[in-house]
Amino acid sequence: MSRTAIIAGQGVLPGLLAEALDNPAVYAVEGFAPGIPARSFRYERLVPLLDQLAADGIGRVVFAGAVRRPRLDPEAFDPRTAALVPRVAAAMGRGDDALLRELIAIFEEWDLTVVGAEAIRPDLIAAAGVLAGSPSAADRADAARAAEILSVTGPLDIGQGCVVAGGLCLAIETLPGTAPMLDFVARTRAERRGGVLFKAPKPGQDRRIDLPAIGPETITQASAAGLSGIAWAAGGVLVLDGAAMVAAAEKAGLFLWARD
Amino acid sequence: MSRTAIIAGQGVLPGLLAEALDNPAVYAVEGFAPGIPARSFRYERLVPLLDQLAADGIGRVVFAGAVRRPRLDPEAFDPRTAALVPRVAAAMGRGDDALLRELIAIFEEWDLTVVGAEAIRPDLIAAAGVLAGSPSAADRADAARAAEILSVTGPLDIGQGCVVAGGLCLAIETLPGTAPMLDFVARTRAERRGGVLFKAPKPGQDRRIDLPAIGPETITQASAAGLSGIAWAAGGVLVLDGAAMVAAAEKAGLFLWARD
Repeated sequence: MSRTAIIAGQGVLPGLLAEALDNPAVYAVEGFAPGIPARSFRYERLVPLLDQLAADGIGRVVFAGAVRRPRLDPEAFDPRTAALVPRVAAAMGRGDDALLRELIAIFEEWDLTVVGAEAIRPDLIAAAGVLAGSPSAADRADAARAAEILSVTGPLDIGQGCVVAGGLCLAIETLPGTAPMLDFVARTRAERRGGVLFKAPKPGQDRRIDLPAIGPETITQASAAGLSGIAWAAGGVLVLDGAAMVAAAEKAGLFLWARD
Repeated sequence: MSRTAIIAGQGVLPGLLAEALDNPAVYAVEGFAPGIPARSFRYERLVPLLDQLAADGIGRVVFAGAVRRPRLDPEAFDPRTAALVPRVAAAMGRGDDALLRELIAIFEEWDLTVVGAEAIRPDLIAAAGVLAGSPSAADRADAARAAEILSVTGPLDIGQGCVVAGGLCLAIETLPGTAPMLDFVARTRAERRGGVLFKAPKPGQDRRIDLPAIGPETITQASAAGLSGIAWAAGGVLVLDGAAMVAAAEKAGLFLWARD
């Protein structure tokens, strides 16, 4: 049976997947710390990595963890990876989703099966329901409004989150991600409190890569932004360390709600 | 002939309108400084203000200048304004645009004609064309992408601006406005430069109120965010102090483009 490779970025997800795999091989994007032993690689040498995966007997690949778009060093490319640049650059201009689809396509062309984190750790996907606290009627209305907003912005390949309070959109997640968005809310709102962080995958996105994720640090950030709680599209968001999240949410007085 | 009243918030627009009017009456929202002499009023006493406008011989009203949503003091309401609260609160929950339409409707019910700033100062609306610098092909592509994004988000009653760089959306304007959005971009982007601030009215919005505006300070903020320039929907954005903007843009090396 072939081995599974974890292509790892930042955060705890690579480690969570490694726990569930038999003898996984971990390859980390240079400059990112997945928190587990890993060989590092550079995007500029993607084709040599693909050859390495074949040599290592890898048949299945899972992408895990946050990766900022790197600056690329033109001198670091090997010729075969350089030949892929026009294709990747064209996808990059169409947004994150297009870029990630193109990366998946390249891995598949090397006869690798690409699976999502949820295929390896289905327990990271919370079933619908309230996990902590209790969203009020106003919170539920805010979550519904947020879901409507993301259903419209998603096809534009923009973000996977927004903040709504009292029916008003305070922020839409863009390239910088959830933490800077919540920091923006914390900085710009006056003394008012309340509101909901809502997360959802983009409609039609490839769920094998870049599924939105929340973790205990999301609780800290949402609390600092004065929110009442966090809601997300049930089944569409990775809940990293659910037990710690529930404990942190209860301590902070925030609700957690996997919304149907 | 009846007099025109300027209902004034923050910024230079009330003064720019007053210059063009014969004997205008200026009423400022308490807590905001329109920079010209004004009687102040509180939202909680909107109906007494409307009576005052009639007593002052006002037939025409123009709203001018930025106003943050205020906190309302329940004890400050007079009974007739209090009776309007359910109606205004319902509109408020549907977004800025709905709230402003409701306010216009109330003024019109008092037999006041509500006009837009552009009816009084048509010179504040720039004709299509490049006013400063020269947008590159990449800048034009970013502006086109931004216009597409706002055409989709506008019907959600979200913002009137966004920032796109290299085809990627870095920020969408929400409740806090343009300056905090540009500050967010300045904080979150790495060393990369370039990109476009794009402003446009929301599709179908009532152009008599809350038309997006740009001014010299927008140049400073866009420059601090590392942008290449500012583009906007020609005919749909107030350009406050165009001469100073062009001078500031040329000094900062930014383009200004009223896009068809």
